[in-house]
Amino acid sequence: MRILGVDPGLRRTGFGVIESDGVRLRYVASGTIVVPADSDLSARLKVILDNLRQVVRDTSPDFAAVEKVFVNTNPHSTLLLGQARGAALCALADSSLSVHEYTALQIKKSVVGTGRAAKTQVQAMVQHLLALNGAPAADAADALACAICHAHIAPLAERLRDNGVLAASSRRPTRLRGGRFS
Amino acid sequence: MRILGVDPGLRRTGFGVIESDGVRLRYVASGTIVVPADSDLSARLKVILDNLRQVVRDTSPDFAAVEKVFVNTNPHSTLLLGQARGAALCALADSSLSVHEYTALQIKKSVVGTGRAAKTQVQAMVQHLLALNGAPAADAADALACAICHAHIAPLAERLRDNGVLAASSRRPTRLRGGRFS
Repeated sequence: MRILGVDPGLRRTGFGVIESDGVRLRYVASGTIVVPADSDLSARLKVILDNLRQVVRDTSPDFAAVEKVFVNTNPHSTLLLGQARGAALCALADSSLSVHEYTALQIKKSVVGTGRAAKTQVQAMVQHLLALNGAPAADAADALACAICHAHIAPLAERLRDNGVLAASSRRPTRLRGGRFS
Repeated sequence: MRILGVDPGLRRTGFGVIESDGVRLRYVASGTIVVPADSDLSARLKVILDNLRQVVRDTSPDFAAVEKVFVNTNPHSTLLLGQARGAALCALADSSLSVHEYTALQIKKSVVGTGRAAKTQVQAMVQHLLALNGAPAADAADALACAICHAHIAPLAERLRDNGVLAASSRRPTRLRGGRFS
């Protein structure tokens, strides 16, 4: 399976694509979408939306993985991050990708072996696990780490679901409460 | 000009479309996108994205107006609202609409005449200004109020820009810092 990991941010959104056959991991692509700071907000979100859809078209992943956000900054930053994250998730869902979310703890444990790993340790382990010549940039490394986490966790979750330990999720249909249209 | 106002929320996103000829306002449509609570986050954001794009296709607005968020809730709510807002702004930008943002103060002053207006006062004034038979539901009323605010403020801003009092915004092109693609 081919996995796209995303590390959303309003200034810089990292992405990383890997392949996993259940045993080995293979690096496919990674990079950073750098969003110009002087546009208005909707234009900046559109940059994330458009470029991430382009990444999906270029790399054809089967799954997407995004880090769950731990809110520890000020409310203004949280709102901005939320909007960037909303744009990233929209790009993935708009490309009909199934999106999986993992906490920072899950990702660090999965990649480094401990939840207390520093950023540089994550970068070094991503480089090692994917047999890269150099450590990827921070945003791309976080995105690749998220994809690696999915590669490690997804087969296990699949087995638990098959055995009836994890329940399949149910979904209600959408209602659009309309509106008098002229 | 035809204006689409949006009041984004992860559970309920209100929308309202009006027309303005510079003097009179005319009601076109309004409603609420009700998002099912039991889906995963990316599926919920996709509901907002898809339905709001549908509203744009159905009503063909020239401009979009969205309320600027005043952050006064807990960080978790702020993050959820941010993501819903991100999805709404993506839908508008994805439809090539120019998006204008107004503070709650601007909207209330523009619609009711005072920034300290209660929600019910906004609903009553929206009903009055658009000559509706009944008051619209809260989310739709907020969205219509936002559209009315743009109808009132936009011609003034246009005149100020024409007179060189307001500067036109500049935009840098986007850079996509790529990645090594295999």
